[in-house]
Amino acid sequence: MNTHTLPEAEAYVLSEDTKAKLKRASTASIATQLYKRGLRNQFIQGVRPVTRKPETMVGQAFTLRYLPAREDRNPLEVFRDPAHKQRVAVETCPPGQVLVMDGRKDASAATAGSILVTRLAVRGCAGVVSDGGFRDAEGIGALDMPCFYAGPSAPTNLTKHEAADINIPIACGDVAVFPGDVIVGDGDGVMVIPAHLADEIAEACAGMESYEAFVIEQVANGAPIIGLYPCTLEENEKKYEAWRARTGL
Amino acid sequence: MNTHTLPEAEAYVLSEDTKAKLKRASTASIATQLYKRGLRNQFIQGVRPVTRKPETMVGQAFTLRYLPAREDRNPLEVFRDPAHKQRVAVETCPPGQVLVMDGRKDASAATAGSILVTRLAVRGCAGVVSDGGFRDAEGIGALDMPCFYAGPSAPTNLTKHEAADINIPIACGDVAVFPGDVIVGDGDGVMVIPAHLADEIAEACAGMESYEAFVIEQVANGAPIIGLYPCTLEENEKKYEAWRARTGL
Amino acid sequence: MNTHTLPEAEAYVLSEDTKAKLKRASTASIATQLYKRGLRNQFIQGVRPVTRKPETMVGQAFTLRYLPAREDRNPLEVFRDPAHKQRVAVETCPPGQVLVMDGRKDASAATAGSILVTRLAVRGCAGVVSDGGFRDAEGIGALDMPCFYAGPSAPTNLTKHEAADINIPIACGDVAVFPGDVIVGDGDGVMVIPAHLADEIAEACAGMESYEAFVIEQVANGAPIIGLYPCTLEENEKKYEAWRARTGL
Amino acid sequence: MNTHTLPEAEAYVLSEDTKAKLKRASTASIATQLYKRGLRNQFIQGVRPVTRKPETMVGQAFTLRYLPAREDRNPLEVFRDPAHKQRVAVETCPPGQVLVMDGRKDASAATAGSILVTRLAVRGCAGVVSDGGFRDAEGIGALDMPCFYAGPSAPTNLTKHEAADINIPIACGDVAVFPGDVIVGDGDGVMVIPAHLADEIAEACAGMESYEAFVIEQVANGAPIIGLYPCTLEENEKKYEAWRARTGL
Amino acid sequence: MNTHTLPEAEAYVLSEDTKAKLKRASTASIATQLYKRGLRNQFIQGVRPVTRKPETMVGQAFTLRYLPAREDRNPLEVFRDPAHKQRVAVETCPPGQVLVMDGRKDASAATAGSILVTRLAVRGCAGVVSDGGFRDAEGIGALDMPCFYAGPSAPTNLTKHEAADINIPIACGDVAVFPGDVIVGDGDGVMVIPAHLADEIAEACAGMESYEAFVIEQVANGAPIIGLYPCTLEENEKKYEAWRARTGL
Amino acid sequence: MNTHTLPEAEAYVLSEDTKAKLKRASTASIATQLYKRGLRNQFIQGVRPVTRKPETMVGQAFTLRYLPAREDRNPLEVFRDPAHKQRVAVETCPPGQVLVMDGRKDASAATAGSILVTRLAVRGCAGVVSDGGFRDAEGIGALDMPCFYAGPSAPTNLTKHEAADINIPIACGDVAVFPGDVIVGDGDGVMVIPAHLADEIAEACAGMESYEAFVIEQVANGAPIIGLYPCTLEENEKKYEAWRARTGL
Repeated sequence: MNTHTLPEAEAYVLSEDTKAKLKRASTASIATQLYKRGLRNQFIQGVRPVTRKPETMVGQAFTLRYLPAREDRNPLEVFRDPAHKQRVAVETCPPGQVLVMDGRKDASAATAGSILVTRLAVRGCAGVVSDGGFRDAEGIGALDMPCFYAGPSAPTNLTKHEAADINIPIACGDVAVFPGDVIVGDGDGVMVIPAHLADEIAEACAGMESYEAFVIEQVANGAPIIGLYPCTLEENEKKYEAWRARTGL
Repeated sequence: MNTHTLPEAEAYVLSEDTKAKLKRASTASIATQLYKRGLRNQFIQGVRPVTRKPETMVGQAFTLRYLPAREDRNPLEVFRDPAHKQRVAVETCPPGQVLVMDGRKDASAATAGSILVTRLAVRGCAGVVSDGGFRDAEGIGALDMPCFYAGPSAPTNLTKHEAADINIPIACGDVAVFPGDVIVGDGDGVMVIPAHLADEIAEACAGMESYEAFVIEQVANGAPIIGLYPCTLEENEKKYEAWRARTGL
Repeated sequence: MNTHTLPEAEAYVLSEDTKAKLKRASTASIATQLYKRGLRNQFIQGVRPVTRKPETMVGQAFTLRYLPAREDRNPLEVFRDPAHKQRVAVETCPPGQVLVMDGRKDASAATAGSILVTRLAVRGCAGVVSDGGFRDAEGIGALDMPCFYAGPSAPTNLTKHEAADINIPIACGDVAVFPGDVIVGDGDGVMVIPAHLADEIAEACAGMESYEAFVIEQVANGAPIIGLYPCTLEENEKKYEAWRARTGL
Repeated sequence: MNTHTLPEAEAYVLSEDTKAKLKRASTASIATQLYKRGLRNQFIQGVRPVTRKPETMVGQAFTLRYLPAREDRNPLEVFRDPAHKQRVAVETCPPGQVLVMDGRKDASAATAGSILVTRLAVRGCAGVVSDGGFRDAEGIGALDMPCFYAGPSAPTNLTKHEAADINIPIACGDVAVFPGDVIVGDGDGVMVIPAHLADEIAEACAGMESYEAFVIEQVANGAPIIGLYPCTLEENEKKYEAWRARTGL
Repeated sequence: MNTHTLPEAEAYVLSEDTKAKLKRASTASIATQLYKRGLRNQFIQGVRPVTRKPETMVGQAFTLRYLPAREDRNPLEVFRDPAHKQRVAVETCPPGQVLVMDGRKDASAATAGSILVTRLAVRGCAGVVSDGGFRDAEGIGALDMPCFYAGPSAPTNLTKHEAADINIPIACGDVAVFPGDVIVGDGDGVMVIPAHLADEIAEACAGMESYEAFVIEQVANGAPIIGLYPCTLEENEKKYEAWRARTGL
Repeated sequence: MNTHTLPEAEAYVLSEDTKAKLKRASTASIATQLYKRGLRNQFIQGVRPVTRKPETMVGQAFTLRYLPAREDRNPLEVFRDPAHKQRVAVETCPPGQVLVMDGRKDASAATAGSILVTRLAVRGCAGVVSDGGFRDAEGIGALDMPCFYAGPSAPTNLTKHEAADINIPIACGDVAVFPGDVIVGDGDGVMVIPAHLADEIAEACAGMESYEAFVIEQVANGAPIIGLYPCTLEENEKKYEAWRARTGL
């Protein structure tokens, strides 16, 4: 009865070209492009990088849903079960994808710790996002893989969270995340791009990033923003074309 | 991969005897009995009766999970789909059961309105609980069926909530609710009794309610609580036995 | 520099016809009609009726903005000034209009009390809405005029709020309210209809209320909601037409 | 080392005269009088009457402080101890006084239930205030004694609260409450009057209530508030004197 | 009707001398001096430096008020309007002043981004403060100008905020900010000094900073704080005088 | 009446051996060990290091309780009193112990500043924890002693907090802290170990840290976590024994 038939999202495969474009895009530009298409609520609220990596995180979403933990179902022994959903998620999230966790915005306990996140990094995953806490957060911050969370939290996930479902649509920081959606994270936080829009958004952002690089140079040199950002003066259009020709950006 | 194998909960059928006992129990007594068994987090936080009915709500949980609504997936037209999950949940929640909704504690939009809740009442459901809002709340309050919510909210559920799953384990007011769990609601709010404990808890509460009726009578007549509540004096034990013999309670 | 040129809102005059239609509309229906037109955020969050009046509140917005109170600017003596903005607002809000107050969602102090609200009622205003507190709330609840607030609060407004502006655009419960917007309040709370949409929304709601009255009757008599709400079966369309012919609703 | 030497508060005894005046005062008037004396933070935030009684609650504070409950210190058996602080507080709060509880604004569990509150009522206490929850709230609401709480909550206090201290200064709803302070509660909520100011505030309120009764009559009859509230016109002063002479209020 | 006549604030011009003193003052000292004068609520709550600059931010307030964004009024095209209030504010905030934004404490969307803030820096403004979010926060953090915000947020301001007024009194982080007030920011956050008190507070802080530098040296060398901080022993007064003579601080 | 008889906690003296073990333990391991013993709520919520020190903070708790500040009791002059509780706490917290402050989770004002915290450091205390704010937070961050707080806050403690009790049981970040409990802080935050469990927990953590060091090495080298963490395969047990023999960890 609970079939989540999302053919377009599940079928979508992030191309290298789109991935490369999104690596150069900012979450701010992505937010603007989604806004333009009527999507106002794709920024995961309340999460931040464990530590900021120079590279932008880009990958499709692989999801894990947590329920509130009931004491009798969550003794420490559950981790001995090789089918424990948290462990399975960490071992099955495909390389290149981002593990996104629904911790119901409750960071009073962890949703993962450094051992599990190290495993994700070693397996070649593109990143991890949780709207709950991480424990051993310093160890996580030392990894190369970008990681986003609601804050450090020493208590084991069993204290508040029971891993319940793998790869179903979830809520994360008030945003719906469907498996296959494209997740992008930088210093501002994390955006969720619906899979069917990813190529189009990536393309649109490439243009924006180019124009904004020009604008920031102009502004740094004393240009006023009116007429320049956005471009409403022909003169600025010409300057931009010249700048592009010159810089190749 | 997302099999929620909860044989005991799904297999459990609430007997008429247990139901009758729970109808006479308070949520306070149930909370104490669960506390005694190590379960401290079974009270749904942040919900209240739309209007208080004289009778206590008792029934097994039938669940509906909402995701955050994404604008492009939730035009008003989705309600024309006969398979829309919210509508299906309302038409399939079995008579005698309680529809429990996971609205992620967000009452800034409705999770149901008076037409749907009227349909549940007509279908013989035992009640409805949501940690989101209800619209047309006055109409809902006028029904005979007990209804619990986080507050009135005019916006349609599509504004914030997309019905996503029927009868899977959910979070409601920070409590895990598994389909088949026994839901009890009164003036204090709503308790979730794990299915496998329902008979035992109902039995234990019957004893408590009897003793507390005796205590309240004693206290109203001037008895001090120490030694009486809980009973640590043989004298009070004897008085209670006499009272039981006399009243038959 | 701060001209708020909103010709359409300021020029709009609520007609008796539109007012009458909105008196029969629910805030839920209005929310749906606004949602259909892309407006998802017109429900004032966090306010409730002081006591529910049988009649729906309808009137154009007249606004009052409060700033955080700075101690040296707000001794009790400020009320002796005949130009004190709170007092002036109460004396100048036109009959038939709703005084809407921006209390920055801070109900730890009052934004008005029973004397001022009584004055508004005597002056023929249509209602009052505040996302802050009201003091002497029981006195306010006894008036005939509908009043909406974030909760009772004994401290004088000077404790937290300095009345600063009359009839400029404000925020109230996370919604933008422009002077002249049409404000509608019932048991679910308060909706803000942009002035230029008021006639159209009123008209659309009239149709909805008629159909929903038919639906609720059908549902009460055992009809399932699928195909009926919304109407997707020709059969139900015919039944509705017959019902309208019969009832004149 | 923890001597709370508050001679003035502990030594203060509420006179029948002051008590009678405060019974006729509103918490709004008290708040204004305290504001005038530089005290802006004496309104207990976040509490409301369980059910509103016709009479205003007035009495000196007797306090109980709760700590967060540690699981190993709070099995149900602790209630068998005749020295359990919650039970002792209920049995020792003097008649005529108000039991004020510091529940750290956490209403996710109860701080008292109907049996204990009934005992307080039978013992002649003037009321009870908690910034935590009450269980069996309907039973509490049915008592004659005024009771104020942050909301109904079925879980036993042991779930979240360990009774730790009797009659030391506490925090309640963000207000400091010293044993002996005068507590006044009505429909708006609860004010804390420092003991040494109680007589003076009561006296000042008597005058205010008289003038406000006159004002509300004038306003109901169509008088504008400017010049009347506060009184800045000699004409209104005269009218008030005549009204007082006529009504004896 | 909405004249904000604040002659003293608008007329006040921050002198170089006062500015220099405030550059050496901490927000902690300023808070204490304002507290001494009865002003307890001048610390902007909930904002922090984007990145901490070695120099303290000092400048008079130039303000921008945002309203909640209504969807139909805020398509991306509004930025093409050369009179858009956000853009105009950025181009008109005088050099040496601080742009303070009222984002209603809502950081779920940006109130500015790196291009606009770069423009402010190039124009010689003294800083920027918002109780909403900033996008491209890393770019902002790389500027020399001190910037304070409630957190990074990728969504464009149009998502939640409509720029409505320039240079009227606003609320920022629960503090009233009047145009012309003196804004000081350091590692602890941001203080608002009412214009008419700025010279006096700056002077008083100079003395405090000198004494505290002495104290911290004493404490580092093993002196106890009682009798030293504050100075209540003549011996410490003498030591301080000697220290001042020696260090010239 | 308020004797806090906690013989075991007060009598407990942290041994050098246990201290050394806890210095090598993470708060995450401690949380797990406490969880195993039924203690789920020993992580102080909402506090973070002012700046992270390389060494873990370990020491027994010495406590300070703040009440909400009443204006008339808290002029700046109170600091001239050599018996002011905040100052006394700072001068009497024993070397090697951690000063833990109950600021009722209110960081809108400071609970300490750099002068007092410097004094604690000079006196050889092991650290300081507050669920309120610190002022001059940069100065505090520059000290060698680990310090944990809810955030920087310029206003003096008198604005919101009155120091009321020294070394009684308190609440800090929703956790009960008894004088003598063992406090451990690292990058994730702060754990409270009940005194009677400290030796046992320290011992158990030593084993965990050893095994986790092995695990992280294995995972970094490509080992999957299932069967390894926790160890459920004999093969991994053997590998671990070999690793221990080799590394001596």
